[in-house]
Amino acid sequence: MDLVDQRTGSHVIDRDACLRLLAADDVGRLGVVSGGTPLILPVNYALDGEDIVLRTAPGSKLDAAPRARACFEIDRFDHDARSGWSVLALGRLEEVTPYDRSWPHVQSIAVDPWASSPKTHWLRLVPDHISGRQVP
Amino acid sequence: MDLVDQRTGSHVIDRDACLRLLAADDVGRLGVVSGGTPLILPVNYALDGEDIVLRTAPGSKLDAAPRARACFEIDRFDHDARSGWSVLALGRLEEVTPYDRSWPHVQSIAVDPWASSPKTHWLRLVPDHISGRQVP
Repeated sequence: MDLVDQRTGSHVIDRDACLRLLAADDVGRLGVVSGGTPLILPVNYALDGEDIVLRTAPGSKLDAAPRARACFEIDRFDHDARSGWSVLALGRLEEVTPYDRSWPHVQSIAVDPWASSPKTHWLRLVPDHISGRQVP
Repeated sequence: MDLVDQRTGSHVIDRDACLRLLAADDVGRLGVVSGGTPLILPVNYALDGEDIVLRTAPGSKLDAAPRARACFEIDRFDHDARSGWSVLALGRLEEVTPYDRSWPHVQSIAVDPWASSPKTHWLRLVPDHISGRQVP
């Protein structure tokens, strides 16, 4: 179904299509709030069910957990065609530690950071809202 | 100068290079906080000095102004080479209205949204911090 957002004029990407786009990619942007300022941080990730799983070193991303509100975004822009799409997931950001029941499962997820530094901490964004928009 | 961020292993893009990258692009992502949740919203923009200027319809972006903390990010990812870069500007988000001295100047800035809906409001992000990272 092709829905048009009356306010923005963009087309709505339905939830299933958003999840397919999230499953097909491996790099996106985590949004966290640090000291009242929003930050946008590129990260490699994997989709686990509907959760977004990523690895990190200590820093802004980890400081935001546990259980902070966060978001995650992927997009593609075509400058020549002046078109693009984006998917935004909103939810709770949790750290998964060796004390959590899901630790062995999370360890098996193929999150493969491009940066070479050790990323020993695992974060999970549990979305409660997933939406997508397209400028055709 | 080629600096390496010891924590992340990524290379630092200096401020001048960040501004050149911002000047060369026309679409990025605004980060705002809405009801405690960070949002990442793709937007067309233009660089005016060191300020990021964008047009919007009423909604989440406009609700965040006046004078809210916000951020703006651009990036490029090369999936095949497993490399990429990003630039992040942090600062204050202001609405520019017809009552502001800078209104005529802002009107002359070529911000050209891809989406067809009317975007009659102008926002300006005044950065107090600009940084960039590269995974080579």
